[in-house]
Amino acid sequence: MIRVVVVGAAGYIGGELLRLLIGHPEVETVAAVSSRFPGRRVDGVHPNLRSATDLLFCSADDVEECDTAFLALPHRTAMAQIDRWIARAKQVIDLTGDFRLGDPEVYRRYYGSEHVATHLIDAFVPGIPELHRESLRSADLISVPGCVAMAGVLALYPLAVRGLVEPTAQFDARTGSSGSGATAGAANLHSVRSGAMRVFAPTGHRHEAEISRHLGIAAAMTATGVEAVRGVQTICHATLRPDVDTSAVRRAFREQYRNEPFVRLVAHQRGNFRYPEPKILVGSNFCDVGYAVDEEAGRLVTIAALDNLMKGGAGNAVQCLNIRMGWPETLGLSFPGLHPI
Amino acid sequence: MIRVVVVGAAGYIGGELLRLLIGHPEVETVAAVSSRFPGRRVDGVHPNLRSATDLLFCSADDVEECDTAFLALPHRTAMAQIDRWIARAKQVIDLTGDFRLGDPEVYRRYYGSEHVATHLIDAFVPGIPELHRESLRSADLISVPGCVAMAGVLALYPLAVRGLVEPTAQFDARTGSSGSGATAGAANLHSVRSGAMRVFAPTGHRHEAEISRHLGIAAAMTATGVEAVRGVQTICHATLRPDVDTSAVRRAFREQYRNEPFVRLVAHQRGNFRYPEPKILVGSNFCDVGYAVDEEAGRLVTIAALDNLMKGGAGNAVQCLNIRMGWPETLGLSFPGLHPI
Amino acid sequence: MIRVVVVGAAGYIGGELLRLLIGHPEVETVAAVSSRFPGRRVDGVHPNLRSATDLLFCSADDVEECDTAFLALPHRTAMAQIDRWIARAKQVIDLTGDFRLGDPEVYRRYYGSEHVATHLIDAFVPGIPELHRESLRSADLISVPGCVAMAGVLALYPLAVRGLVEPTAQFDARTGSSGSGATAGAANLHSVRSGAMRVFAPTGHRHEAEISRHLGIAAAMTATGVEAVRGVQTICHATLRPDVDTSAVRRAFREQYRNEPFVRLVAHQRGNFRYPEPKILVGSNFCDVGYAVDEEAGRLVTIAALDNLMKGGAGNAVQCLNIRMGWPETLGLSFPGLHPI
Amino acid sequence: MIRVVVVGAAGYIGGELLRLLIGHPEVETVAAVSSRFPGRRVDGVHPNLRSATDLLFCSADDVEECDTAFLALPHRTAMAQIDRWIARAKQVIDLTGDFRLGDPEVYRRYYGSEHVATHLIDAFVPGIPELHRESLRSADLISVPGCVAMAGVLALYPLAVRGLVEPTAQFDARTGSSGSGATAGAANLHSVRSGAMRVFAPTGHRHEAEISRHLGIAAAMTATGVEAVRGVQTICHATLRPDVDTSAVRRAFREQYRNEPFVRLVAHQRGNFRYPEPKILVGSNFCDVGYAVDEEAGRLVTIAALDNLMKGGAGNAVQCLNIRMGWPETLGLSFPGLHPI
Repeated sequence: MIRVVVVGAAGYIGGELLRLLIGHPEVETVAAVSSRFPGRRVDGVHPNLRSATDLLFCSADDVEECDTAFLALPHRTAMAQIDRWIARAKQVIDLTGDFRLGDPEVYRRYYGSEHVATHLIDAFVPGIPELHRESLRSADLISVPGCVAMAGVLALYPLAVRGLVEPTAQFDARTGSSGSGATAGAANLHSVRSGAMRVFAPTGHRHEAEISRHLGIAAAMTATGVEAVRGVQTICHATLRPDVDTSAVRRAFREQYRNEPFVRLVAHQRGNFRYPEPKILVGSNFCDVGYAVDEEAGRLVTIAALDNLMKGGAGNAVQCLNIRMGWPETLGLSFPGLHPI
Repeated sequence: MIRVVVVGAAGYIGGELLRLLIGHPEVETVAAVSSRFPGRRVDGVHPNLRSATDLLFCSADDVEECDTAFLALPHRTAMAQIDRWIARAKQVIDLTGDFRLGDPEVYRRYYGSEHVATHLIDAFVPGIPELHRESLRSADLISVPGCVAMAGVLALYPLAVRGLVEPTAQFDARTGSSGSGATAGAANLHSVRSGAMRVFAPTGHRHEAEISRHLGIAAAMTATGVEAVRGVQTICHATLRPDVDTSAVRRAFREQYRNEPFVRLVAHQRGNFRYPEPKILVGSNFCDVGYAVDEEAGRLVTIAALDNLMKGGAGNAVQCLNIRMGWPETLGLSFPGLHPI
Repeated sequence: MIRVVVVGAAGYIGGELLRLLIGHPEVETVAAVSSRFPGRRVDGVHPNLRSATDLLFCSADDVEECDTAFLALPHRTAMAQIDRWIARAKQVIDLTGDFRLGDPEVYRRYYGSEHVATHLIDAFVPGIPELHRESLRSADLISVPGCVAMAGVLALYPLAVRGLVEPTAQFDARTGSSGSGATAGAANLHSVRSGAMRVFAPTGHRHEAEISRHLGIAAAMTATGVEAVRGVQTICHATLRPDVDTSAVRRAFREQYRNEPFVRLVAHQRGNFRYPEPKILVGSNFCDVGYAVDEEAGRLVTIAALDNLMKGGAGNAVQCLNIRMGWPETLGLSFPGLHPI
Repeated sequence: MIRVVVVGAAGYIGGELLRLLIGHPEVETVAAVSSRFPGRRVDGVHPNLRSATDLLFCSADDVEECDTAFLALPHRTAMAQIDRWIARAKQVIDLTGDFRLGDPEVYRRYYGSEHVATHLIDAFVPGIPELHRESLRSADLISVPGCVAMAGVLALYPLAVRGLVEPTAQFDARTGSSGSGATAGAANLHSVRSGAMRVFAPTGHRHEAEISRHLGIAAAMTATGVEAVRGVQTICHATLRPDVDTSAVRRAFREQYRNEPFVRLVAHQRGNFRYPEPKILVGSNFCDVGYAVDEEAGRLVTIAALDNLMKGGAGNAVQCLNIRMGWPETLGLSFPGLHPI
């Protein structure tokens, strides 16, 4: 049993981490840090944890040494506190955007402010098991990618890494409302957000910088909020290099993901779930990936779906922890999702 | 053409009033008062009015004399400002809870504060055309009922006024999220409110006092927020007096509502819309009413559905205006609702 | 490891049983019987089971002896096949309505046809652990109650069994669309069913007979389909016996459910989840129960919520299996539910 | 008053035509043809028309001469019946796909069957007022475009016609469930379709052929069903020609749509409705169009939203009728949409 702390435990990613870690057989969750609710019961904020835990939120100052600290904080807050958590924890797994971009200049462009812990940027290993599993086995600083970026990276990586597509691609991301967090505001008022198809980022979404970094291409992203609470779907429109046909695409996906415990290829001829669909992934750690080829036009469409709080956040972080600790990679992450839902 | 003012025009009831009044052939909307957004374009807050109006919100102080003032304010605010609006407008149509209960003592019990305009309570005519049409023809002070109350009153009135039911009844109300207003808060965050079945008032809902008043019975209400933006449905469970059978119930409803332009009886044997269903009433001013009788048990179930911003608020207020002005009662209110939706 | 068979495995209850049983550490799922899809992959029908199973559906004739057979069939079908399954399985757990009502006469009234296996009616133990745990420990024929009935029974049992309420009560049930099953029809077309508040049974719902049986009172039920896929909420309106106050109600609930692993009391003063709310129970086996008392009126409102495919069906059936086998009652049923969702 | 007939009146487009035509001051709706429901009340199928009409459905054979026939039939059916309707009606307005593509060869590729009325293909004027208003003034055969195509055409036309974009573009369309029609099937079962992000056409959607035709470019479309009943949103990803900047884009849109009664430019800096959003267009005939430019990348993103049954179907057809008859173009189409909804 290792001792873990969740910092930012009152948010949605924080709550999902608590749910997973409380149910994890090798982990003891020793502290749930919340600057807003110290002293309050965790299940008062996360009602699904009623009867699962009697934990109270605490302040950061209450936390002593631990094995692993998960930072589920607002963007910019993690880099400001990072030294404190490195001092107290053997491993720090950051779920903010602070250490996702390898370049402080790119960070400034996409986040609009200076990076305040540039000395650590290179020390963080990207929390993408499918790309960095070996490095993660010994990583003590892990930066978990954004939900939409995770989907985008997995949607195109097998093609990009093999040089089968042209080096620019467009990503069309759709997200549920939980990605906006647990803080109420005019934008996520139910009567306004319900049934929406809100193009909140026609150009310049932050996650395109992550995708570009990991795929080595120029990614352009358009992001739309659609009716869902959990769930992300990213469509990638790419151009195939000459002479790349459907079977080459299929082969690339199969080779790449054959042994991945949490990536499933979904591209069927029939049925209502022919391509990746977020709703059957709610609560699960899978990222489903599919594709279609228009050979005549040399055009490739790939589709990835995941639960933004799971494979797009907390679940992926726990997968990284499992890798780091040498445990079975699926430990505590075996929930298969529900149907119908 | 009369000149009207909407006070509290940035809220949902206010916006619906603006939509109806801008499209009303006998009305000129001269001012949209908002304490939050003076100077801002109305269609910046109510995006459905883009290209329909260039009106700007103004302050209450900017309003001079007018024919009719609609008060779509927060509860307790209308009674505090009422003298000002009576001084400026020939008619005042209040959509708050302030003048709905005929008794300041009942008001205190249900609203938890003192009534500050008790001298006017008796002067307000309830804005229920189906019960008070004659009084409304000459009323200069009109108090429009709450949405759930309106449904509850229309659901049982034909039976209650004929003495066909026992003098206690239970009301089970379900409401969409727009009834909570346009101000964001933790309770109406999309991710929390979406898909909810939230029992927010198991006992003691304010509207039970209105229903009791208008029906002359002891009403007990349980209210639940369900997944919808617009829409209210109130189920009434009543006990039939001895010897009252199905045909007596049917006769009571038919007699009562035969000539009502905005009440339809909906109690069919077949189809997916056998009983009143709010979703096909979105945007319309109808209140659909249905019923079922368990003769063996002497039990009556009645069902009423409406759009809370229309027949449960703004639409009903305009219907009252039409009556007061001697115009056709359906003027500006003829939108039939949509299907499917 | 015991060997189990799911009959009617292509339906929603059948799919949920498969999900739970495939993940159950003491169970081997040897057959998934479907008369519609023999030979087809299970995960072609239940896409959430992709990568969880390679099982194919089979015909009933393909099934040989097993330890336990779960019957997730259409109503009336189970009693027609029951002898076959008793001959092949040591235990039969029936999830249809066929053996829920102890009286063939009541069955005829509520289901409109003759019972064809009356000799077995008394042999079935109701699958309600909270009422019949001891009998279930040795039961070889178990009849799992209907989803709405389960909620209704748990909502009022503590009061009814102690004689604290009058012997008639009204139940207002709200259900999601999955309760209508996996067969498409005009009634559950998305554009028609979406956002509905459909009163499909104003009086005479079948489950009121079950509730009446288990509570020993005269239950009257009104049932409404609301916007949700999974989820049932049952509100009970009851009248307190003289001198029964809030603390007596609280005591009854606490005593009754203190040690129940899957019943949680939820009646809080604050927050957005003060009373039982189905959405946070999606995928979990909890039934949350709450209450409110209007002491002045002598009126009691109780509220129960559950996932109709879990505690209202498959989950409850597995709980019964765990009891019968002497395993920990929560085995394979520990998923706590999600928030937000 | 002209006499009109709706053929295929029991479908969703047919019902919307009836709603509009019944409320239209210059039109008498003389027949609602349905092969499925002859003799049945129209409001039994379209419950929103209760109290608006007592019309019964009739058979095609019951229809005598009329002024205008609207064909809201299944694809392929209109071309099979077209001679009959031309013989009986002065104008035929077809809402199927049969006469949308100017080329029988393209028709075969996208619809998979032979065109059986090729002699008429050239005689139909596309029902796109924004492109073909002058021709529509005297057209007796009008072919109303598909909903997603209408959005796609309006999204890019101002740029394409001015040669400001490269001649290939990608369209990402999202649609509600009503676009699939009123016939129940496994694909539009509520529990399956609810909350979906279903990529039903990753490549090769039929409407891309229409867009290509009207814009003179090579359009590639990916189509996804999202959670909504009504509503279409089409995102267009295009590449700007060299030296085309934001102001040139803005100018093109403003010039093109300045006087269009049903196209609004929506591209704001602030608020929750900055870009076109279908939900506030439910029931209205507007197509909102917006855009964003990434000047550095030379990339243009345009967004169009509409109600698929209105500007994407029935409303657009009535707009064409108004133009053909020389009536005010907005006659009977002035409903502004609702907010919140």
